[in-house]
Amino acid sequence: MKKDIETIEERVRELLQSSERGAHTYDHSLRVLKIALEIGQEEDANLKVVGAAALLHDIGRAEERETGISHAILSGEMARPILEEVGFSREEISLVIDAIRTHRFSEDLTPNTLEGEILSDADKLDAMGAIGAYRAIAQSAVTGVGIEGFLSHADEKLLRLNQLLHTPSGKALGKQRHRVLELLVDELRREVASTEGLTTPELSSIPDMRGE
Amino acid sequence: MKKDIETIEERVRELLQSSERGAHTYDHSLRVLKIALEIGQEEDANLKVVGAAALLHDIGRAEERETGISHAILSGEMARPILEEVGFSREEISLVIDAIRTHRFSEDLTPNTLEGEILSDADKLDAMGAIGAYRAIAQSAVTGVGIEGFLSHADEKLLRLNQLLHTPSGKALGKQRHRVLELLVDELRREVASTEGLTTPELSSIPDMRGE
Repeated sequence: MKKDIETIEERVRELLQSSERGAHTYDHSLRVLKIALEIGQEEDANLKVVGAAALLHDIGRAEERETGISHAILSGEMARPILEEVGFSREEISLVIDAIRTHRFSEDLTPNTLEGEILSDADKLDAMGAIGAYRAIAQSAVTGVGIEGFLSHADEKLLRLNQLLHTPSGKALGKQRHRVLELLVDELRREVASTEGLTTPELSSIPDMRGE
Repeated sequence: MKKDIETIEERVRELLQSSERGAHTYDHSLRVLKIALEIGQEEDANLKVVGAAALLHDIGRAEERETGISHAILSGEMARPILEEVGFSREEISLVIDAIRTHRFSEDLTPNTLEGEILSDADKLDAMGAIGAYRAIAQSAVTGVGIEGFLSHADEKLLRLNQLLHTPSGKALGKQRHRVLELLVDELRREVASTEGLTTPELSSIPDMRGE
């Protein structure tokens, strides 16, 4: 196993660090790996499959941007030769690719194995909590959609992720992360509301309280 | 007063929206204005001076990037002709410029008027709370320093701002904002710690619990 997982990690690093938003996606993959292994241990899953699927689940992102094909499909296809190279069995390869294909929030595919559920949970957990907020805010800054864009994204996606968790361990990890996300979004909305909508009529009503 | 503050706001919008990071700085100026007026009302300050100082406090930012001179000094200088244009008295102009010159965290100038203290408090409050976190995360994404860069900035600056507030009303507003910031930073650090430091030896110890 030692050489297997090291080789997979090497391939993932090469693929993700060379792509445009590389560092971010590679860091994300390592965090998903760690969360997936934590859940996998508690849920008594096949950790070899879980670990490989977590590391490889986003390797098709750069190609998605070029082709428009979902990275869940692309990552699955790109994973096959790497898994063959490190000597995974046909059954293991099939389990890994199946997990990768069904991990994505935006598609309507439900994982049908424990390992697929774990990858899906780990990926969602990294989009929740303080790290999820950090990632979404960074994205909103880079794309220029601003605070309002972040708040919409939080309402439409981030704050719904806790309902999409599959495993008991994933749901347990999700509780604190959901709470933090909710608190931050509520407070941001409160602060924005308290300082926005300052219109010119309101401005012109400023009195000079000390007279003049 | 009506025409005065409208004209000032127009000049600020022209100056800040045309500069590189314009939209952001203009939004920030409007939020500082609103917070400053809220504190100013409670502290019975000269709202004409407070409002003008809040709107004008960052207009020298673009020139700071070109010249390296502190925007607190530049904004003060650039404010003078605008304030003369709208008919502020010499005493009012001197109070506004004085407040602008002493608002900055990074310089060691302490405000010596109530209006200066209010501008300084309002500017710091917009760097605290969920909005402060949002602004700092957006900045860390744009400059590429990442999560670690954000956490350092939070430790070195954001989490110390509550100790630098001057007015009773500013300190009251700062309590909730400081708590939110602290919670987010603690949780982010906890989440990062729980998923980082996954080294190759650790990876290679992944067992296949279902055997093979």
